[in-house]
Amino acid sequence: MAKAGLQVALPFGIPVGVLGGGQLARMLALAAHPLGMAPYVLCEQITEPAAQVTQGWLKGHGNNAKDLETLLSQVQTLTFESEFFDLEPLKKVATKYPEVYIYPHPEIMQTLQDRRTQKAFLDQNQLPTAPWCKVTGPADLPAAAAQLGFPFVVKKAQGGYDGYGTFFVRSAADFAILEAKALEDRALWPAIAEKAISFKRELAFMVFRSRQGDIAFYPLIETVQKDSRCDVVSGPYRHRGIGAIQTRLKKALKAADYVGALGVEMFEAANGKLLINELAPRVHNTGHYSQNVMNFDQFQLHLLCGLNRPLPRLQQLAPAFVMTNLIGHGQQIPARHLSSNRITGALHWYGKSEFRRGRKLGHINYWGKNLKALIRLALRERRWLENSNGGQQ
Amino acid sequence: MAKAGLQVALPFGIPVGVLGGGQLARMLALAAHPLGMAPYVLCEQITEPAAQVTQGWLKGHGNNAKDLETLLSQVQTLTFESEFFDLEPLKKVATKYPEVYIYPHPEIMQTLQDRRTQKAFLDQNQLPTAPWCKVTGPADLPAAAAQLGFPFVVKKAQGGYDGYGTFFVRSAADFAILEAKALEDRALWPAIAEKAISFKRELAFMVFRSRQGDIAFYPLIETVQKDSRCDVVSGPYRHRGIGAIQTRLKKALKAADYVGALGVEMFEAANGKLLINELAPRVHNTGHYSQNVMNFDQFQLHLLCGLNRPLPRLQQLAPAFVMTNLIGHGQQIPARHLSSNRITGALHWYGKSEFRRGRKLGHINYWGKNLKALIRLALRERRWLENSNGGQQ
Repeated sequence: MAKAGLQVALPFGIPVGVLGGGQLARMLALAAHPLGMAPYVLCEQITEPAAQVTQGWLKGHGNNAKDLETLLSQVQTLTFESEFFDLEPLKKVATKYPEVYIYPHPEIMQTLQDRRTQKAFLDQNQLPTAPWCKVTGPADLPAAAAQLGFPFVVKKAQGGYDGYGTFFVRSAADFAILEAKALEDRALWPAIAEKAISFKRELAFMVFRSRQGDIAFYPLIETVQKDSRCDVVSGPYRHRGIGAIQTRLKKALKAADYVGALGVEMFEAANGKLLINELAPRVHNTGHYSQNVMNFDQFQLHLLCGLNRPLPRLQQLAPAFVMTNLIGHGQQIPARHLSSNRITGALHWYGKSEFRRGRKLGHINYWGKNLKALIRLALRERRWLENSNGGQQ
Repeated sequence: MAKAGLQVALPFGIPVGVLGGGQLARMLALAAHPLGMAPYVLCEQITEPAAQVTQGWLKGHGNNAKDLETLLSQVQTLTFESEFFDLEPLKKVATKYPEVYIYPHPEIMQTLQDRRTQKAFLDQNQLPTAPWCKVTGPADLPAAAAQLGFPFVVKKAQGGYDGYGTFFVRSAADFAILEAKALEDRALWPAIAEKAISFKRELAFMVFRSRQGDIAFYPLIETVQKDSRCDVVSGPYRHRGIGAIQTRLKKALKAADYVGALGVEMFEAANGKLLINELAPRVHNTGHYSQNVMNFDQFQLHLLCGLNRPLPRLQQLAPAFVMTNLIGHGQQIPARHLSSNRITGALHWYGKSEFRRGRKLGHINYWGKNLKALIRLALRERRWLENSNGGQQ
């Protein structure tokens, strides 16, 4: 239900809707205000990160038709902080509000939210990715092992992220464990199996496509994962294979009329080739550095993509940059440490209500001339912050 | 009155209170969120610029003891977006909440909010300023004219800003007009009279003093006024007189235990000497460029000043910068123009509910290498935006 009076709370900008209340929605809302946009976020609790930063909070869920109707009746554009919404209620409600521009459009969101259709999308567009096959249930595993060989990875087709719903199968023993797991855990299926890539490093970039069809790329970055979660991002880097991928991606996004930010995560294989690991149809952890390093950050650009005008010209403001994630260790980081002058980078805190182990609590951006020195600095400062947090990990 | 449930809405950061709901409070709140602070703003309407950007809106006024009590019971620090609050109710309520740190402290706010005591503060601290005298009412004008000579300026002692409550007296004829005006307008008195300075340019800088006593200065900038309002800020500039002023100011701020941001507006007189025109005990329009040009902007620094720790080290991120104010012309600027790619600077829009002539609606920051080129670019882009706004002025 909308709060009474909400319509008059934020009339003084373009009303934009965001499904979700986490840190990505929060940073979209924080970026919207100075751009002359009035952000409405739909999420269940007023304590969620995004609800805290706008009067345009609507209580509800993006899978609920009634809540969506309340939101759509008030906004001019609508977008997502996550690809994991059920798009069917939205598609139904959207027919009543044809004047609201929803992006990325629900069909392409459905294609990309399921690993099976996302993989097919990559293959159809000659975008290089690891060999894969569908695994509808445990019964398909022997055929997958025969087709792909060890090691391979089984990934939940829908709703997996940050390593949740991912199982490595390195051997027949792992395979046996997976089979046992499969009996317990019906939530894993349907899934895909994918040949495990022996990679030198993980690279990524953000691409933005506007409603008018303009395309802009952010620089190539390296992402270092820890426990299957993005941990440190640094850049910029070069790779001779990136031009070919971006050319094909442009065509693919145009053909699909994709609009908004898109995170492209890649492996650089042992042989130097780039393989796309995943497309994330939204703002993305690997683009957070842009808040302090690009003249328009990924949140601003995603919001601007939904308007009917050209994208601004992009400028990178520092030769090198690093972002470190602050990951929950189950204990609260003392507030006095967050604003300590021992942290010289730019803090972006998410205001989460729990410090649960493994949760992303915030990130810190660094920028300057010398990439190696920045990485050392960023890791040293984070270590200090983590040690202040009980000393674990 | 607080909204029900507000205490649980923003518990996940240091709760900081701000008196006022305008653009300065808005930008303080927007800066607070990523720093891990939970901003509470006290103002009368949910439609005010600052109320839009936080769930921590409290309905009320900073002059009202009951409203202040609601606010003080929830925050750890309290600060001001304006020097024009009545400090007496706050001083009274503050005795009940000794654990809340209020800054700048109410005594120094009272000293600086009245031009008579502010001028005396400048004189006592050997900070150069134009000769002046008190003018309690119209009866004191002949003595002021005799003491200062033409031209002189009469300024309302309390509550004047952006040229409101300021009268130039260039001649006996002006003097007669002022006397007539004085009969109509009791609100002008008490006032001060000040020798009018024939100046080459207006310079300004921001200074920050932390609760621990650290002091940091931003670069010297030039501010060009239009209709007595800040219109364009550019920088950085040098002036050989600045060191002496900053040394005395440090002493004065230490002696007064001033904490927070302070805007220092100066005239460069025809003879090259610097004279302080005004001290503004808060974040200030001449510091807005910092949002895109300093590693910690004035809003972040002001918030950090109130915590019990050292200030971070400051870095200027671009060699040159310009800020232009967007001033209301009585007609709405079309929202599509705000996000046009013809604006290459960084927009900071205030979300005001009215486009009244003369109101500050937002500003745009530019930064780069060549100051002259930046000024041309900034003025060209603003002209385009103003022409889209009915073509007036």
